Amino acid sequence: MYIKGNILNVITDEIYPGEIHIEKGKIREIREVNKDFNNIIVPGFIDSHIHIESSMLTPSRFAEIALKHGTTSVVTDPHEIANVMGMEGIKYMIDDAKTAPLNFYFTAPSCVPTTTHETNGAKITIDDIEELLSRDDFVALSEVMDYESVLNNDSEIMAKINIAKKLNKPIDGHAPLLTGKKLQKYIRAGITTEHEATSRREVAEKKRLGMKIMIREGSESKMLEEFVREKCDFIVTDDFKADDLIKGHIDVILRKAVDLGMDPFDALKLVTINPAEHYNINAGCIAPGRNADLVFIDNLEDFNIKRVIINGNTIFKKQKLLYRANPKLIDTTMNVSFKPASAFDLKANNPECKSATVNVVDVMDNVIVTGRTTAKLNIEHGNIIPSVYNDILKVSVVERYGGNNIFNGFIRGFGLKNGAIASSVAHDSHNIITVGTNSKYMADVTNKVISNNGGLAATSNRDSINLALPIAGLMSNKSALSVATTSQKLNDFVNDMGCPLVNPFSTLSFMALPVVPSLKVTDKGLFDVDNDKMIDVILHED
Amino acid sequence: MYIKGNILNVITDEIYPGEIHIEKGKIREIREVNKDFNNIIVPGFIDSHIHIESSMLTPSRFAEIALKHGTTSVVTDPHEIANVMGMEGIKYMIDDAKTAPLNFYFTAPSCVPTTTHETNGAKITIDDIEELLSRDDFVALSEVMDYESVLNNDSEIMAKINIAKKLNKPIDGHAPLLTGKKLQKYIRAGITTEHEATSRREVAEKKRLGMKIMIREGSESKMLEEFVREKCDFIVTDDFKADDLIKGHIDVILRKAVDLGMDPFDALKLVTINPAEHYNINAGCIAPGRNADLVFIDNLEDFNIKRVIINGNTIFKKQKLLYRANPKLIDTTMNVSFKPASAFDLKANNPECKSATVNVVDVMDNVIVTGRTTAKLNIEHGNIIPSVYNDILKVSVVERYGGNNIFNGFIRGFGLKNGAIASSVAHDSHNIITVGTNSKYMADVTNKVISNNGGLAATSNRDSINLALPIAGLMSNKSALSVATTSQKLNDFVNDMGCPLVNPFSTLSFMALPVVPSLKVTDKGLFDVDNDKMIDVILHED
Repeated sequence: MYIKGNILNVITDEIYPGEIHIEKGKIREIREVNKDFNNIIVPGFIDSHIHIESSMLTPSRFAEIALKHGTTSVVTDPHEIANVMGMEGIKYMIDDAKTAPLNFYFTAPSCVPTTTHETNGAKITIDDIEELLSRDDFVALSEVMDYESVLNNDSEIMAKINIAKKLNKPIDGHAPLLTGKKLQKYIRAGITTEHEATSRREVAEKKRLGMKIMIREGSESKMLEEFVREKCDFIVTDDFKADDLIKGHIDVILRKAVDLGMDPFDALKLVTINPAEHYNINAGCIAPGRNADLVFIDNLEDFNIKRVIINGNTIFKKQKLLYRANPKLIDTTMNVSFKPASAFDLKANNPECKSATVNVVDVMDNVIVTGRTTAKLNIEHGNIIPSVYNDILKVSVVERYGGNNIFNGFIRGFGLKNGAIASSVAHDSHNIITVGTNSKYMADVTNKVISNNGGLAATSNRDSINLALPIAGLMSNKSALSVATTSQKLNDFVNDMGCPLVNPFSTLSFMALPVVPSLKVTDKGLFDVDNDKMIDVILHED
Repeated sequence: MYIKGNILNVITDEIYPGEIHIEKGKIREIREVNKDFNNIIVPGFIDSHIHIESSMLTPSRFAEIALKHGTTSVVTDPHEIANVMGMEGIKYMIDDAKTAPLNFYFTAPSCVPTTTHETNGAKITIDDIEELLSRDDFVALSEVMDYESVLNNDSEIMAKINIAKKLNKPIDGHAPLLTGKKLQKYIRAGITTEHEATSRREVAEKKRLGMKIMIREGSESKMLEEFVREKCDFIVTDDFKADDLIKGHIDVILRKAVDLGMDPFDALKLVTINPAEHYNINAGCIAPGRNADLVFIDNLEDFNIKRVIINGNTIFKKQKLLYRANPKLIDTTMNVSFKPASAFDLKANNPECKSATVNVVDVMDNVIVTGRTTAKLNIEHGNIIPSVYNDILKVSVVERYGGNNIFNGFIRGFGLKNGAIASSVAHDSHNIITVGTNSKYMADVTNKVISNNGGLAATSNRDSINLALPIAGLMSNKSALSVATTSQKLNDFVNDMGCPLVNPFSTLSFMALPVVPSLKVTDKGLFDVDNDKMIDVILHED
């Protein structure tokens, strides 16, 4: 196949009219020609850090939309499904990904389970890491989020890191707010990337110490505007929802980057040659021998996608997508029985007391770290009662791997007036997390999630909406549009219930992630991330 | 150990006063301090493409000087000794290198023998390549100089390339003047670097096609001035003689680069972080966990070396070098008997003729490519006689691996008036090459080289000088100063004999290299590189 257009070279920062000869999925030859063309051919975009599960779509369903937007490769960490189903889950992702034309490169989940502070569904062992990293389609050791283990020279995490070093594969980092001596120790272990930075100061420190910085511009965390002038190395989405995906992917981010003043060649490097070099992916620039992953765009401001070629096959052209996904379903992973409302009651230590002062997780919109606060709540019939007026609601984590743990605590920021929401997407162990105004509603939504084999649910005094995610409780087998539509309905419904958060379920999904500061809930209790210990919900009762 | 100074960061382009904590040979921590310092601490320099043998020094003897000049790592291709002694030679290099504090990283010689157009001493097989590339100290497949084999899809070279790909190690290139479709095919094979470019146009084409460009600034080929504004990737020396080494190494090149207008941070990147990234070397920037390879310099114009730390050990300080080399000798590799003068006669086909028109290798000073010309020479007593007046001298290649081949031809440019020179350093097979005004002198110098177990020799009607290179006929066990002094004496002597070349022996050493255009001599005959075939010396006789 021969294609023609204005070829953009991300190495030499040139655009020149040319013809590309494609053979057996690779670029065979490039020839400069003397013609005028309207379109620009750029290397296919690479999202170099994404958890596909967070889109609530399977890889093939994700591909169905992402490739229309010029994404031709992703480096994906199947960390979420690994936490639910271990190697079997990772193999589901590989197999489903293979049915799609998009190039899926995987990283081997380094921290499954993430910590011992919660119950998850499976363990990825040192041997599993060796098996995965020996594969050609596994390009790195996934983000080492359990930085405490690195700081403590834990033998298991060090063994995993050493396997990656031995196999010449890079090691991704995840150390939000880590600084000073601790950060230096973390980097010393051989960890080379960071996508969790949230300030220019953090970027500066980490860059200076040799880390490559990923600008995260995902559904929740959006750092592009802040870091646009920081000379970072990659742009990634990390977590990217179907709702956002249907509007675009890397193309939208490039448009925003240029709009914010970034040179378009510089912006393109962050999603082409830079990740290709770092992860040893045979793409990222238009050069002989590289995968023929090519995208026709209209110009360097709008980045409108005219045509997409992946591995030499035209997969999107004239607004027509030449691929349809058909992902397989799997057996349920919800190993938990229906819960009575009483399971969500939070008993006072002393039922005689009138009130309890409690630790409260303090939600911040659009960032995955939480604050912490305290609240004084009434005790009625021996139970500590949430204060809808003060937006102190109940939050519970229902373990779903057969152990029957349940933890009940308090949270501020969800703003529900009368109802509850629940989700089996709850990083990283993906137990069922629910926030509500009373135990009855919380039991209802939790049981709905269970009966759907996983998913999201919301209920109020007026209505109930749910989204089934039967694949590991994380993903739908439906299309992005279908998932996004239901998800958007759920969002609107929850906002109507009084929730001021932009993305209530995304925010909810991070409330149980005990590796991100500062106060989180797990099925085992209330976890003080900053001090690395469980703390009591109740401070004192009066 | 703690060291202090103005720390130069090649990633962030900053200089800030700081303290570096070194532990177990690695950088443990870096701390910014509030003090004034005179010196700048920079990452140790990396020469990312060098054949140590070309210095005529062993690795340990090379290190003895290079580290005084701030070189802390080299990526070296033991291609020369491999051509003489195969794996045994490579192991000599590894073992000798280990006795020195400098970090020697090796590449696995991909083309030994280089071609079938000459006789060499050994073969590096596909299995050898696998054995070498599986080692941690082997960081790449060496320059694939036999580009014709790549263009012909030769199964052996492709197997070697595939081993490198499988082991995630880069593949170095060597394709001087290769352009267009042939170049694209060469790159398509997965070859990623080029150090042979000799014009900005060549650089531009190769960069555009995805190659990383090494600016070669060696003893013979000096491209820095030409390429100083070309945004290349590395600076290397490739072939660097003891005579030059005693004056400096990368430090001198940095000084020149800055003097030519290159930004000092940009210049430093080419010899620190860039090669470290490409060859996966744990150095190249001052960051936690990296090898503590650190150099104190006075400023960013002079690059005077004040102190050198390698793997955490101070090895040079206050003009004192804290290391002395003591390389081992090995058995002779000269498997050839002494030659009579008559062996160097070039017989006419028809002794009745008066003259012969012959093909002549046309030497150009300071580049390793040759031109070609013809000359009409007298026939006397059945022999074709060189013309000293017209500077058409005889050139012979004496095979030294037990096969007794000898080839006699003609060369222009050496300018000798009365005498001969010979060398067992003759890329890439390292047979004995000699240029002279008559057969008697040529036999004398050749036999001197043989009796020295290899080396260089020159003789005239007035005097004789020689340099023994008993290690594979390539290297001395003596110090750089000793080798350089004798080498310089030889040079001056040969210049006094009428030779106008700046480096007669270096130029001589490339006359038998049949992978560099355009006309070369080997023990098997006169090789037309451009047309990939042997041609006759004699065009016609009259």
